[in-house]
Amino acid sequence: MNLIDETRAEMLYGEMGPGREMSGGSAGNTAAGIASLGGVCGFIGKVHNDELGKVFTHDMRAAGVEFNTAHLVGGPATARCLVLVTPDAERTMNTYLGACVELGPDDIDEDQIKRAQVTYMEGYLWDPPLAKDAFRRAIEVAHGAGRKTALTLSDSFCVDRYRQEFLQLLEGDIDILFANEDELKSLYQVDSFDDALQRVQGHCEIAALTRSEKGSVIVRGNEVHVIDASPVDRVVDTTGAGDLFASGFLYGLARGYDLKTCGTIAGLAAAEIISHFGARPETSLKTLVDDRPRT
Amino acid sequence: MNLIDETRAEMLYGEMGPGREMSGGSAGNTAAGIASLGGVCGFIGKVHNDELGKVFTHDMRAAGVEFNTAHLVGGPATARCLVLVTPDAERTMNTYLGACVELGPDDIDEDQIKRAQVTYMEGYLWDPPLAKDAFRRAIEVAHGAGRKTALTLSDSFCVDRYRQEFLQLLEGDIDILFANEDELKSLYQVDSFDDALQRVQGHCEIAALTRSEKGSVIVRGNEVHVIDASPVDRVVDTTGAGDLFASGFLYGLARGYDLKTCGTIAGLAAAEIISHFGARPETSLKTLVDDRPRT
Repeated sequence: MNLIDETRAEMLYGEMGPGREMSGGSAGNTAAGIASLGGVCGFIGKVHNDELGKVFTHDMRAAGVEFNTAHLVGGPATARCLVLVTPDAERTMNTYLGACVELGPDDIDEDQIKRAQVTYMEGYLWDPPLAKDAFRRAIEVAHGAGRKTALTLSDSFCVDRYRQEFLQLLEGDIDILFANEDELKSLYQVDSFDDALQRVQGHCEIAALTRSEKGSVIVRGNEVHVIDASPVDRVVDTTGAGDLFASGFLYGLARGYDLKTCGTIAGLAAAEIISHFGARPETSLKTLVDDRPRT
Repeated sequence: MNLIDETRAEMLYGEMGPGREMSGGSAGNTAAGIASLGGVCGFIGKVHNDELGKVFTHDMRAAGVEFNTAHLVGGPATARCLVLVTPDAERTMNTYLGACVELGPDDIDEDQIKRAQVTYMEGYLWDPPLAKDAFRRAIEVAHGAGRKTALTLSDSFCVDRYRQEFLQLLEGDIDILFANEDELKSLYQVDSFDDALQRVQGHCEIAALTRSEKGSVIVRGNEVHVIDASPVDRVVDTTGAGDLFASGFLYGLARGYDLKTCGTIAGLAAAEIISHFGARPETSLKTLVDDRPRT
């Protein structure tokens, strides 16, 4: 993932072939996934009062996600991400953060957070200083209400920039960590997955670690689960795999399922999203999970 | 793996194209691997005083393995296994147990077992009743001397036949268990690796679980290590992968290495053996391990 400005966004867009537009955004995808699973969830995030912002809002609400953050009037346009997908299903993401950087502590709906079992935050937003303040506020409110907090490390480049701050967050601010293998190894600056696993164990309450086709490893205290990836006929576009993994995991956790079941649902949701273009589910994840083979 | 009698062995051999002969046998391969790693080890096993038995004995001793079990005079010939390898590197093993079934408690060299940090037994030999008695005797001697015992489940068919006995052995008789994913799932009659993992944890002191290209999982009490498979340029013949994994793991354990290092050395030894035909190392495993990239 690269961060780009508006000029480069336009330049790149001019060079791109015909595309397709759809709502996205890491935590937004996660929220839409939870709704598709039949879970109740809300989203806090900043869009501009422009065409894209309206479409995003429509899509979130139509998916069944509570979304009431005030639209930005004036200032930068709604964020966008130009995603280029190659035939091996890997993607290059070029993100113009736009209105996102205006998210601040005043946007934190305390009542919404108090109602939520888990408040989940994306590491991507650790970049804009205002959003960082919003995160700290959200953590305070969640923990004050006896609720849990979760963080995804989002991308290795985020970890490179904010390693010390992320490590600090794990010392009590964040209860549930989501990370893929590269992000986790970068966080602890180690070369092997197992070394990172030994470090994260006990560093936060739960760590949900994704390993692409190797599946996932879920850790809570001394409990370690090694869960296979769900089979996928054809991997088309890996965009959103981590986001939807988080959907499934958080949904399961909120339902009080055991960690193996949470990881299994997470894997099913991730498998659905990588089987087509775009990072929003194209089929009811609830049906997919209800119909899964039981082992 | 199929067990065959002498008649079928001859029939099959007549149908086979040109082959190559080499010493083998599951625990024999493991012993040869340990020697190649620079470890000190002995082997107890029954061969006939025939040509194959002499070749086997030569190969073991030439590899540096202490091997003094009395040769069988009269009775069945030395065991042999007709291994057919397909281009996908998978193998069909047709084993005539021959002289192996004559191994008994009297063959147990108590002094040798008392000197060994670990006495390792193969599940394949749980078939002949005399060998079973030999195992029980070896366990008694090893534990009496304050040493460790190890067992490989060998094959899912062994587990199917002796599930209750193997489960019983894990209740104190066996300290270190080696199993691949299929064997472990069969042992606990569960459908997912994670379910089996939860069951084996705490069932014996150490479990070393192999998962082919998914690497291995090593468990000791609350300590869980998830270790990647070593890269292999081209998998030629998977015969002996588990045997050599055990070589590396036991070698590391005897040296007092941490579990991650034991698993890494085990993976390197397994990777060497599957990169060529046959289940005995073709290169010095010691050199291979000494030169490994450190992470």
